[in-house]
Amino acid sequence: MKAWEKNVRKVTPYTPGDQPNRPRMVKLNTNENPYPPAPGVAKALEAFETDCLRLYPDPKSSILVDALAEYCHVKPEQVFVGVGSDDVLALAFMTFFNSDRPVLFPDITYSFYPVWAEEFRIPFETPALDEEFRIRKEDYYRENGGVIFPNPNAPTSLALGRSDVEDIIRHNPDSVVIVDEAYVDFGAESALGLVDRYENLLVVQTFSKSRSMAGMRIGFAVGSPLLIRYLNDVKYSFNSYTMNQLTLRLGVEAVRDEAYFRSTVDKIVKTREEAKRILGEMGFCFPESCSNFLFITHPRYRAKELYEALKKEDIYVRHFSAARIDNYLRVTIGTDDEMAVLYDFLRRYAKRQNT
Amino acid sequence: MKAWEKNVRKVTPYTPGDQPNRPRMVKLNTNENPYPPAPGVAKALEAFETDCLRLYPDPKSSILVDALAEYCHVKPEQVFVGVGSDDVLALAFMTFFNSDRPVLFPDITYSFYPVWAEEFRIPFETPALDEEFRIRKEDYYRENGGVIFPNPNAPTSLALGRSDVEDIIRHNPDSVVIVDEAYVDFGAESALGLVDRYENLLVVQTFSKSRSMAGMRIGFAVGSPLLIRYLNDVKYSFNSYTMNQLTLRLGVEAVRDEAYFRSTVDKIVKTREEAKRILGEMGFCFPESCSNFLFITHPRYRAKELYEALKKEDIYVRHFSAARIDNYLRVTIGTDDEMAVLYDFLRRYAKRQNT
Repeated sequence: MKAWEKNVRKVTPYTPGDQPNRPRMVKLNTNENPYPPAPGVAKALEAFETDCLRLYPDPKSSILVDALAEYCHVKPEQVFVGVGSDDVLALAFMTFFNSDRPVLFPDITYSFYPVWAEEFRIPFETPALDEEFRIRKEDYYRENGGVIFPNPNAPTSLALGRSDVEDIIRHNPDSVVIVDEAYVDFGAESALGLVDRYENLLVVQTFSKSRSMAGMRIGFAVGSPLLIRYLNDVKYSFNSYTMNQLTLRLGVEAVRDEAYFRSTVDKIVKTREEAKRILGEMGFCFPESCSNFLFITHPRYRAKELYEALKKEDIYVRHFSAARIDNYLRVTIGTDDEMAVLYDFLRRYAKRQNT
Repeated sequence: MKAWEKNVRKVTPYTPGDQPNRPRMVKLNTNENPYPPAPGVAKALEAFETDCLRLYPDPKSSILVDALAEYCHVKPEQVFVGVGSDDVLALAFMTFFNSDRPVLFPDITYSFYPVWAEEFRIPFETPALDEEFRIRKEDYYRENGGVIFPNPNAPTSLALGRSDVEDIIRHNPDSVVIVDEAYVDFGAESALGLVDRYENLLVVQTFSKSRSMAGMRIGFAVGSPLLIRYLNDVKYSFNSYTMNQLTLRLGVEAVRDEAYFRSTVDKIVKTREEAKRILGEMGFCFPESCSNFLFITHPRYRAKELYEALKKEDIYVRHFSAARIDNYLRVTIGTDDEMAVLYDFLRRYAKRQNT
């Protein structure tokens, strides 16, 4: 190792899901929305004058912040926007978790949390989910340097009720508590209504799932004005202009079309409920999903083998090799047609296993 | 202060230049390009199908990385892209400057450097520019935890020759040396040709100035494959998908149109040379500019007063209140028409001062 390499921050980077791009593939591996963004997004793109791109965007991202404040019924100074919720969460780890005490998050959860903790040299502990993959709220009632959990949790798909979430917040007045609501729109109760009561609560959401905008990279956080100011200070010390002009304009349109948003979410929920029935009949087991994915296992299949067999057919789902969940697959809810291709293959797979 | 606030990373954030947005304003305050992006950018925008926005972008940003590798005559594994060069530089500070020894950069330079150093708790020292605002290369021939300087320097507009840059790199085999070339296309010699000779050299450039894309947020770094791998590891541990789909497509078009790029740069250089003559005749003094701005002072004017007077006329330039440069104004080179408005006001201002 050369001398200059000694000063390098060494990390084990997060591994994102594969992003294959093959014609006719069925892509159910990264929890994207199977439906396009709201029609207003295409119209805003058409109306956009590229000549303005010579100018810097508004560093305050005001048009998007204002649209989100209105949508969430909070003041603009309670809203923070970033390059996907990953950017928001990374900056929140950096801003709020500067303690010698460990940050707490579940052992089975979004696999980026330990990566951020390692990147920023933050100590952490991971209380185990119970046997049914549920968060035990009492595990978070002890001294810590911060608390973060997704609700619904990923990849387990299970949600805590709002009163349980509030219990965790109430027991942690001395830490910042982050509720990561990437999947909340598909059936869980949001903690947004609690931000005016708890100054140390940060609720994070994303446009990547329920708003069909993964390709645009928009995430946001809502909290008390004081919390958001601290987060903005760190953000402005990192990169003044994170949201480009197109992101701001297109993002606003995605927020405004409430009817389209509801209709897409409803379609996905309907397909999910049908998937539960069909996969259940095939012998798959899964926790009760409040999200746009199912976390499935089968008593007679090895998940890794099924994953490989699906991949050969250009059907992509996600497999995690971590302990306790290595015999599960995370399957994003696609369109009815995409799900039909999946069911069809699984029926053939079942026959193959029986012969 | 509440208990949770004790764990907050407290910083003094960077103050970006004002981004006023008034009809008929003359905006010469943030070194934007007065000309629109390459025509291919508008075409790519028109051709873009918003339906794909439901999918994540390519986390490797391959189309843009490949286009830049070809442009810079390096391998794709030598190119890193980010959300403006600020994102690239922030991640580079975080990745490469982890030492107890101080990082070195000039006392008068891009004002974001001390902000990043503070944000990441990096010790630093700032060798003073000489009396004529020149970097003294010998100041960087001592033990350090890293070296960074812009070439041309900002806001002074002066450039070091390539052999001086190479001298600094050659004297620092044990540190990463970052050459920040935001303004290089307007008349300085790039260090890009040195990256294959020095494994510890990182050259950073941006689309915000010479490529008229400030509103799109694209910056990039070129270095050895090892250096770029370290930088990518930290980036993937922060946010896997920083570049959205539109940024990637539009960025590629901006790189490809070499003829348009050259013609806009040439126009700006021509306007700058004329500005030197006209402002010189008005009694302004300034260092020899290799950039798209002039750093002007006048023996009979107070810079801050002139700044305010210009602002009243909707002509925006940049004033810094730091010691040694508080009687200077940084004036971006605009179109000939915009510059004519500036000259016209300055002539009236001169008369006012004489009466």
